[in-house]
Amino acid sequence: MNIRPEYGFTFRELRESINNIWRSYVEHGFVEQLRSGRLPRDCYLGYLRQDYVFLKHFARAWALLVVKLDDIDYMRTASQTLVGIMDVEIPCHVKECAEMGISEADLNATQEGVANVAYTRFVIDTGVSGDALELLVALAPCILGYGEIGISMKNVELESHPYSRWIREYSCDEYQKVCKDVGALIDALVAKTVGGNVESSPRWEKLRGIFETATSMEAAFWKMSLTKE
Amino acid sequence: MNIRPEYGFTFRELRESINNIWRSYVEHGFVEQLRSGRLPRDCYLGYLRQDYVFLKHFARAWALLVVKLDDIDYMRTASQTLVGIMDVEIPCHVKECAEMGISEADLNATQEGVANVAYTRFVIDTGVSGDALELLVALAPCILGYGEIGISMKNVELESHPYSRWIREYSCDEYQKVCKDVGALIDALVAKTVGGNVESSPRWEKLRGIFETATSMEAAFWKMSLTKE
Amino acid sequence: MNIRPEYGFTFRELRESINNIWRSYVEHGFVEQLRSGRLPRDCYLGYLRQDYVFLKHFARAWALLVVKLDDIDYMRTASQTLVGIMDVEIPCHVKECAEMGISEADLNATQEGVANVAYTRFVIDTGVSGDALELLVALAPCILGYGEIGISMKNVELESHPYSRWIREYSCDEYQKVCKDVGALIDALVAKTVGGNVESSPRWEKLRGIFETATSMEAAFWKMSLTKE
Amino acid sequence: MNIRPEYGFTFRELRESINNIWRSYVEHGFVEQLRSGRLPRDCYLGYLRQDYVFLKHFARAWALLVVKLDDIDYMRTASQTLVGIMDVEIPCHVKECAEMGISEADLNATQEGVANVAYTRFVIDTGVSGDALELLVALAPCILGYGEIGISMKNVELESHPYSRWIREYSCDEYQKVCKDVGALIDALVAKTVGGNVESSPRWEKLRGIFETATSMEAAFWKMSLTKE
Repeated sequence: MNIRPEYGFTFRELRESINNIWRSYVEHGFVEQLRSGRLPRDCYLGYLRQDYVFLKHFARAWALLVVKLDDIDYMRTASQTLVGIMDVEIPCHVKECAEMGISEADLNATQEGVANVAYTRFVIDTGVSGDALELLVALAPCILGYGEIGISMKNVELESHPYSRWIREYSCDEYQKVCKDVGALIDALVAKTVGGNVESSPRWEKLRGIFETATSMEAAFWKMSLTKE
Repeated sequence: MNIRPEYGFTFRELRESINNIWRSYVEHGFVEQLRSGRLPRDCYLGYLRQDYVFLKHFARAWALLVVKLDDIDYMRTASQTLVGIMDVEIPCHVKECAEMGISEADLNATQEGVANVAYTRFVIDTGVSGDALELLVALAPCILGYGEIGISMKNVELESHPYSRWIREYSCDEYQKVCKDVGALIDALVAKTVGGNVESSPRWEKLRGIFETATSMEAAFWKMSLTKE
Repeated sequence: MNIRPEYGFTFRELRESINNIWRSYVEHGFVEQLRSGRLPRDCYLGYLRQDYVFLKHFARAWALLVVKLDDIDYMRTASQTLVGIMDVEIPCHVKECAEMGISEADLNATQEGVANVAYTRFVIDTGVSGDALELLVALAPCILGYGEIGISMKNVELESHPYSRWIREYSCDEYQKVCKDVGALIDALVAKTVGGNVESSPRWEKLRGIFETATSMEAAFWKMSLTKE
Repeated sequence: MNIRPEYGFTFRELRESINNIWRSYVEHGFVEQLRSGRLPRDCYLGYLRQDYVFLKHFARAWALLVVKLDDIDYMRTASQTLVGIMDVEIPCHVKECAEMGISEADLNATQEGVANVAYTRFVIDTGVSGDALELLVALAPCILGYGEIGISMKNVELESHPYSRWIREYSCDEYQKVCKDVGALIDALVAKTVGGNVESSPRWEKLRGIFETATSMEAAFWKMSLTKE
């Protein structure tokens, strides 16, 4: 059973265009072990530490999207996502880490892994070199992939599950709402800058390539988190 | 009587270093006419239209500051300022404009004046070329200058004053709190990147020059708003 | 007689779409007085000083274009234009200024005019917010407008003309070659990101708007140079 | 015998502050096998392919440095380095690849490795978030590390050495001149923005951290090139 969430037309086309790479990300061993609860606690802690650094740069990338937009409604969507990361996601993260014995000082002392650097800085550079649509396509595998993984864990029994916090965060309605809004923003930017048929437009290869690289970087992030490299 | 607000050490030094130019901005004819209520309504409406476009690019500049920060607490201060512009300042603006007969569609059709372009893009470019401190120093004349003007109008009789909304917005405690936070952030970035004595540091001339140019651009904005150029 | 140079398809469409504004720039009083030689020497000197600052930021904008490109051939075209500005245009400028009694120290002490700030920072911000094509469209009115003015002065009698250096620089074959290369680069980026019919694409309004604003800023630059504001 | 080249004061301090990490980069197994000629040809070819992509983004990073500078002499140094990469280093690379059976089309089809993405995008993001000095410090491990490796290979017997082209390129006087100019530019920017004693300034930790991360990324690049990951 492969639950495919509805995050808009463009996302569906992008995902289908790199189906195998996409699956290697959302069905990665790390994800499966997290779902079943068999993921070693050390791997999870290592992941949380890297993810804290990730979230900081991810927030910066959403801020860059605000810089690159010129429509006030779109700017508002992007700035609310930024604030969601700053005021909800990061504090939740810090709180869970504290409960697991990692202080905020520890978190700030995390040495950023190569795969972590690679993904976040690739996203930011995509925003530097391209337009708002390209940046948003680079952001999509993270925000929407986590949404898809969250949905797929919707029915996991969370009673005494070691990673229930994570699963709740990404399967909850609030997060799914963010994903739908982001998917709709992608479609809106496509309508505004490409027009009807994104797949047959001259920009498709570029957009697909950005989405593929970003998805590969996400898979490399899981791999790093499993191997504690 | 010259009320000088307390927005931190660095701001005070910067302001004093360009005292005459600063006064030509915060005591500009536009400001004095706005205070007395004698400002022609057409000038005020023209100003509101330009300021709407200004706020959009000003919000983008605050988003750029988030991009340029690496301390989560500082990022939070900057992203809250961004959200304050997007969710409070701009909607207030749009509401007042609506009451005065300017629709949001009208606002979006405003042709941006040369002085308006000059100020906001100068700020953004300062962020592109320099570091977070330089960007914040370019943002300061607007946010803190309006705060200083707001304080100076604290005791204006607002009963039947044509521009009471504007005066309330910038003299109210919430806005003054934002100014204090921004002033403290400037001091924090100075401590972090310059150290004790900013005026005797090799960066002073650059910082002072940015502050001077940004202040001159603010004065040019008032001038444009008075002359309806 | 209106000589219209051939700098590619997209440029022609853009120029025609804002015909009156374009003419207010390339046929501005400053241009006409420069052509006839009746332009007061003081205006010319003031223009040279502002233009020196302009060229520095214009070079930065071309460097930003290199940052935003991903095709090595296009990067090479843009970096050669950058080097042309740094190693030919600026030194020519400095040399002419020296002959007219303005030292390099004087040039560096020039206080940048509002219209000067407005144009260059608008161009750079267009590169920050948009993609390489949008940045190039913002650069076009300067580089190609000067080319068009240069061609229109091709037959001016330069013997004892006070502004022969300027006229030669922009009417010469080398400069016209740069214009043709830039026009071809615009067409190439249109083919790559928009496809066949740029005018009927959803991006057209945005591109046309950027071109219009940049052209207006050029006209404002001439106006500033005539009025010594 | 450990030949330490003279690329300026700041570089020496930075290098000494991370001595072990620096050595893990400039004395990496990849470097030693390249020196002795025992490096497997496949590793070298894989390295050349990745390095081609690297050089493209490295050129973009140097262009970003031009964007971030405001002194014409410094801008000229940076733009000449950019042109050196575009017009000398990349063509040499393409030529050697062609001789080894890799066409330019092959090169452009290279899938960028994670460590490659990580390094170049980290450098570019350092330029986005910080000032020109921080960007230059992020660029330094590559340009100056290759210089130091080049010097250390100065006396290698190149007759029938399989990698003589590489060794000549980085040990030659032209390249060493570039390194000296870059080292002098770092010192100049330190003098301009920090003042006398960089190590006791509040900026030191940040600069040292950037230098360390960039150096680690270079070592990860060698590792990737040895393991063909």
